[in-house]
Amino acid sequence: MTQSRRNFLRNVGLAGGAGVMLHSMGALGLTSAHAAETPAFTPPQPSDLARAGSKSVVILGGGIAGLTAAYELLKGGYKVTVLEGRDRPGGRNFTVRGGTRVTDLKGVTQVAGFSRGQYMNAGPGRLPQSHITLDYCKELGVPIEAFTNQNANALLYYPGDHGIGAVQMRQAKADTYGYVSELLAKATDKGALDEELTADDKEALIAFLRSFGDIGTKEEGYAYTGSSRAGYTVEPGAGQESGTEVAPHAMSAVLAAGLGQYFSFEFGYDQAMMMYQPVGGMDAIPYAFAKAVGAKNIRYGAEVVEWKNTSTGVSVAYKARGRTELIEADFAINCMPPQIAAKIPHNLGDDITASLKSFGPSNAGKIGIEYDRRWWEEDFRIYGGITNTRLDLRNMWHPSYGFHGDKGTMIGYYNTGSAADTYGALTPAQRLSRAVDMGKQIFGDVYGEGITASYSQDWKSQKFSEGAWAYSTTADTDPLYTRLLDATGNTYFAGDHLSHAVAWQHGAITAARAAVEKLHARVTA
Amino acid sequence: MTQSRRNFLRNVGLAGGAGVMLHSMGALGLTSAHAAETPAFTPPQPSDLARAGSKSVVILGGGIAGLTAAYELLKGGYKVTVLEGRDRPGGRNFTVRGGTRVTDLKGVTQVAGFSRGQYMNAGPGRLPQSHITLDYCKELGVPIEAFTNQNANALLYYPGDHGIGAVQMRQAKADTYGYVSELLAKATDKGALDEELTADDKEALIAFLRSFGDIGTKEEGYAYTGSSRAGYTVEPGAGQESGTEVAPHAMSAVLAAGLGQYFSFEFGYDQAMMMYQPVGGMDAIPYAFAKAVGAKNIRYGAEVVEWKNTSTGVSVAYKARGRTELIEADFAINCMPPQIAAKIPHNLGDDITASLKSFGPSNAGKIGIEYDRRWWEEDFRIYGGITNTRLDLRNMWHPSYGFHGDKGTMIGYYNTGSAADTYGALTPAQRLSRAVDMGKQIFGDVYGEGITASYSQDWKSQKFSEGAWAYSTTADTDPLYTRLLDATGNTYFAGDHLSHAVAWQHGAITAARAAVEKLHARVTA
Repeated sequence: MTQSRRNFLRNVGLAGGAGVMLHSMGALGLTSAHAAETPAFTPPQPSDLARAGSKSVVILGGGIAGLTAAYELLKGGYKVTVLEGRDRPGGRNFTVRGGTRVTDLKGVTQVAGFSRGQYMNAGPGRLPQSHITLDYCKELGVPIEAFTNQNANALLYYPGDHGIGAVQMRQAKADTYGYVSELLAKATDKGALDEELTADDKEALIAFLRSFGDIGTKEEGYAYTGSSRAGYTVEPGAGQESGTEVAPHAMSAVLAAGLGQYFSFEFGYDQAMMMYQPVGGMDAIPYAFAKAVGAKNIRYGAEVVEWKNTSTGVSVAYKARGRTELIEADFAINCMPPQIAAKIPHNLGDDITASLKSFGPSNAGKIGIEYDRRWWEEDFRIYGGITNTRLDLRNMWHPSYGFHGDKGTMIGYYNTGSAADTYGALTPAQRLSRAVDMGKQIFGDVYGEGITASYSQDWKSQKFSEGAWAYSTTADTDPLYTRLLDATGNTYFAGDHLSHAVAWQHGAITAARAAVEKLHARVTA
Repeated sequence: MTQSRRNFLRNVGLAGGAGVMLHSMGALGLTSAHAAETPAFTPPQPSDLARAGSKSVVILGGGIAGLTAAYELLKGGYKVTVLEGRDRPGGRNFTVRGGTRVTDLKGVTQVAGFSRGQYMNAGPGRLPQSHITLDYCKELGVPIEAFTNQNANALLYYPGDHGIGAVQMRQAKADTYGYVSELLAKATDKGALDEELTADDKEALIAFLRSFGDIGTKEEGYAYTGSSRAGYTVEPGAGQESGTEVAPHAMSAVLAAGLGQYFSFEFGYDQAMMMYQPVGGMDAIPYAFAKAVGAKNIRYGAEVVEWKNTSTGVSVAYKARGRTELIEADFAINCMPPQIAAKIPHNLGDDITASLKSFGPSNAGKIGIEYDRRWWEEDFRIYGGITNTRLDLRNMWHPSYGFHGDKGTMIGYYNTGSAADTYGALTPAQRLSRAVDMGKQIFGDVYGEGITASYSQDWKSQKFSEGAWAYSTTADTDPLYTRLLDATGNTYFAGDHLSHAVAWQHGAITAARAAVEKLHARVTA
């Protein structure tokens, strides 16, 4: 996500050209240690509508954007109706537990057999500290706990000719930082950077590198010869047991394996620790929203089949329990995935269809695998965190809850793009089989032992989602994008795709609040 | 801790000389991704004593070592008595809550006024994944949760002429890694490291640096010109809000400030995330031990005044409720801090006194400050983690529990050595005043607002501790150290000081298990 956003920023020229100005500001100490500010938002107040009179809004889609819009509009006394195709709130915010039953677009039905207390977040799984999603957790009374997005004991597995097998993240870092520090200290010491560095700079840089890389002195050639940071094969303990350090890999092998390519994930603005999750499952957020919005204001199992502007408002047709119903309101906020909204008949014009079609849906997949013991804790001392691999599993999440419990549920893969499509094309049983075969390459036979349940999610084949998220294929100044930021007639649009936080609930929430603000400003103008 | 242990390892020649061999092993891919092994331990079994008959053991000190020894001996049917000077178990494992009352060696009494649910761990506060302490949490049923030992949103404050004020950890990393990557890419590109690197190495290294430092292309001079990783002053959000990135500081300022000197803390074998803590306070561990050992086997308020070997066992005199009592047993395990044991009359000889005196006690201090709102979360979006400074506060812990609650308790300082002594010399009120004045330099006026309670711990002035921990001043092969690893007569010794995990509960536990093993082997020989 970060990568995409940064690329986007670079593409539109924001990051590159400003460098010199930013340097100058930095040198003056003008940057602030305070948190970034999310634009202020004042919810509608009932008193605002005193003159305008009560207004009704129909909201298409009960995902995070739709729920946020309903919740905020209700604060101002609006009459709201949320139409949701599924039988639950949340959209892509979806937590799978024992008994969860879903039939996908290919007609395949899965029923999750997870044990009591075990779950998998099939959609979003983590909350960055800066995201407004946390403010809603606080406001809605959803308790949070740490999400383990980083773990020195988790593994990296980048197989290849270099001969390095699965390694703990801590060793990958110790070796990479050790050799990088050795190299830069040598180059600095031999004067290769004298054009770039003053004598003071050089001294400070080498002091940093000695600490950062755990390397030797100048007399020792600044050599990296291993570090306790890489870990131990025998743990330090009582008496004379000083431990046995893990042996470092050779520099060429470390570089060839590309182990360091993963490190920057942990620096990302929206991925750096600390991260959080709702206690008991991410869907605590939509269920709390839905409770606040009220059951009478949400129609589940309501599949939109036509959405129209009328001369006085909007009209939406939907199918529910085999019948087609019509709902009319003063306004609509369309929070459906753009690729789905584009396919449903409407009368807002070809421009709107073109805008909705301009977003490119991406796929993502996850599998939850429940085991009868927490072997990653017991055998590997991995308490949470992410094992990353170049196998098409990509990311394996060690659970952030239930430590020391009898059972545990790994996310056996969280992958995107073609890797997700590869798994998505398989049956659930085939997905598990493939995921287990690959996991055994990393963790050994234990990966296939004691499996008590599994459930796999292929977002592309999910009805009402048809993808994991959808990025704009244009600049954010292109009419294909901007057209959806304002009302077309009496219809507004919202969703994470209409934000710079695509694939995050923060994007859905901020976009929904923007739509509510515009709608309310118009009503009270 | 890591630093000290590593230095120790280097001193005894373990780390340096082995480099070449380790390299070779690494290149062969022989290192394992499995967790380090703590030496196997088989608790005594009741059947073991069938021939030897029941044996009694008096344990001096009810800290973690003493409790572990008692707990494991009881598994084998030993009769144990723990003598503990305080009115609670745990020793330095000490959690302060509302109502906690302690009088220190200077006669100063503090009564903690923390609100219900608020607490501070005055002693150990975090558990590494590799430590056997976690196994005891599991065995004893002590629930754990994440300890936030790292946070990209926490601050670094290293004031100086460089002009950089408090910065978020994420910016310190982005700027430091950016410039370091730029420098090494330039040196590599200009051939300054051609002796060290093959063409393949160079290509792989530059690919890594571009990712690691978020730097430009060769054509852009590999320049670091800022990164979204440093954070935003305006958060990316709805519509066209792409966010405003924090401006980078200049390279010379970043190097001069030494911001990167802190990074290696997070790589330490026993400090790298993930870390854990018992839910509700670290003292859940000693209380669980004490419950398992049984109230009838622990005498609180029992201050040892003499410890002796006798011809048939041991004899220990202690004062309790104003009277001197004598207890005799077959064996003793002395788990007192060595600097205290050395001062109490005994008959084990001058060699033992010299051994006990050879450990150097270190000081550490902590202050807990309760606020009526969690301003670090609300104003700074800092959810847990450590703010580090060169002010003598050193480390400020943002709490790892109670997120989004009404109140919160910061550890306003966790410092050691002379910084701890500086605060220790003050009254509790003066400590708070000084800590708040310094905290304001970093966080502004909010640091002094809404304070509802505080409690400060100076370990040097705590009766029955007289220090935070004590390192051996000798090599672990010196008789001053080794003499305490075996019995002297019928007396054994245990404690974290007799381990390579000083200041950690893991050290106390493994040392206690080693003593139990030796004692039991002797009894059953």
